[in-house]
Amino acid sequence: MINFEALYKISYGLYIVCSGDKNSGNGFISNTVFQITAEPPKFAVCCNKKNYTAELIQRHNAFSVSVLEQNVSSKIIGTFGYKTGREVDKLAGKNIRYGDTNVPVVLNECIAFFEFRLLQTIDAGSHLMFIGELINAEIIHDSKEPLTYLYYRQVKKGVAPENAPTYIDKSKLEKLKSAAVSKKYKCPACGFVYDESIEKVKFDDLPADWVCPACGTEKSDFFEIY
Amino acid sequence: MINFEALYKISYGLYIVCSGDKNSGNGFISNTVFQITAEPPKFAVCCNKKNYTAELIQRHNAFSVSVLEQNVSSKIIGTFGYKTGREVDKLAGKNIRYGDTNVPVVLNECIAFFEFRLLQTIDAGSHLMFIGELINAEIIHDSKEPLTYLYYRQVKKGVAPENAPTYIDKSKLEKLKSAAVSKKYKCPACGFVYDESIEKVKFDDLPADWVCPACGTEKSDFFEIY
Repeated sequence: MINFEALYKISYGLYIVCSGDKNSGNGFISNTVFQITAEPPKFAVCCNKKNYTAELIQRHNAFSVSVLEQNVSSKIIGTFGYKTGREVDKLAGKNIRYGDTNVPVVLNECIAFFEFRLLQTIDAGSHLMFIGELINAEIIHDSKEPLTYLYYRQVKKGVAPENAPTYIDKSKLEKLKSAAVSKKYKCPACGFVYDESIEKVKFDDLPADWVCPACGTEKSDFFEIY
Repeated sequence: MINFEALYKISYGLYIVCSGDKNSGNGFISNTVFQITAEPPKFAVCCNKKNYTAELIQRHNAFSVSVLEQNVSSKIIGTFGYKTGREVDKLAGKNIRYGDTNVPVVLNECIAFFEFRLLQTIDAGSHLMFIGELINAEIIHDSKEPLTYLYYRQVKKGVAPENAPTYIDKSKLEKLKSAAVSKKYKCPACGFVYDESIEKVKFDDLPADWVCPACGTEKSDFFEIY
C-alpha cells in the first residue's frame, strides 16, 4: 500500500539549477540536489527530460546550483519554477555570475552556489540524473537559512510543478476527514489551485498579504472552484 | 575555489536504510534518500561500498527506508550510524516489521517508512547509488517532524561519519576567526571529537545533559585534546 502523503516526510532543499553560457542560459528550480560521494565531492541533480535546462546541461557538460534562501520571493519561484526557458529569458535582469565552465550562476535570493563538471548522465525514465564533480563552492550569505521544501509547502503554501520528481497527483493523496467541507481556490493568472483538503489551512485563514506561490498573484484575485 | 562550508547549505533528512531478511538483516543511517521520478515513483539511496547493508541490498534486491523523527535518541544514531552490522546485530531488540520483499523495516523513533524493489545499481566511486521503485509507503506518526541534517548538526551537534557521502575532512573547513582560542574535546568511548572551531559553540556552553552524538557518552566524560 502506498500512502503518497508519506512522501512529504522526506526532506529536501530548493535550488536553482542552471546551464548554458553567456549567449544562451537557463535555469529551473529543483529539489533533488545531493552529494553522493565525499572524495572526490560528486553530486547528483535530477531534471525532467522535457526541461530546456536538461538540453543545455548535455550540450555544455556543466551546470551550477544556487541554494535558495528561506525568504525567497514568489517572483523568483514563479520565474524559475513555473515558466519555460523556451519561451522566456529567465536570466534577463538577474544578478548572474559566470563560472569556470562559463555556465551562468544565479546570485539573486540565494545563500550559496556550486559549479559542477558533468561526469555522467543516468536515464531514470521521465527524468535524467546528472552526476557532476564539484569544481567551485561559495557562500553568499552565511547568516541566512536555506529554503526547504517543507518550509515552501507549509509556510509558503507552494506545490511542486508537474515536471518535478516529487510532483504528486492530488487524486492520489488520502483525503482529510474534513474533505467534505474543504474548498478549492484557483489563481486566475497561472492556474495554481489552493486545495484546503491538502494544505490543511482554510483559504480564508491565510493572511491578507498571502500571494500565489507560483506566480505572485494576490489572494483577493483567487476564485473558488468546484 | 571550493569552500567546503558551503556544502552545509544543502538540505537533507536522516533515515535508517535496511535490507536483508528475518535471518540476517542490517541497517545504516543515510542522509541521501530522494525521489528521482514521480511516475512510477522511483527513489535513489547512496551507500558506501564498505557498508554491510550495501552487500545485503545487492543480495536481496530490495531495501527499506525509515524516516527518523526530530527528537531521535543518540542511542539510535549511535547504533545505526556509528557501528557496523558485521560486528553488532543492530536490529536486536528493535521494533521491526518485515515488508512484502521480507526486508526489515525499523519502526523505532521513525515517523514514516518506505519499501523499495531494487531496479538499478550505479557505481559512483566510493559509494553505490541504489535506484528503487516504491512498493510501500506508510506514515507512523503524522504529527512529529522529520529529523533534518541541519537540525542534527546545529541542535544535536552531530557530525557525519567517515563513510557518509557528506563526510567533510575537518582540515578542509575554513577556520573560524576565533580558531586560535577554540578547543577540541574527545569522547573516550567512540573517539568522536567535538571541535569548537567547527561547531561554533564552546564545549563549556553545551548543556550539562549533552551527550556524545555518536555513542551517547556523557559530556563530563569528554577530555580536551591538543
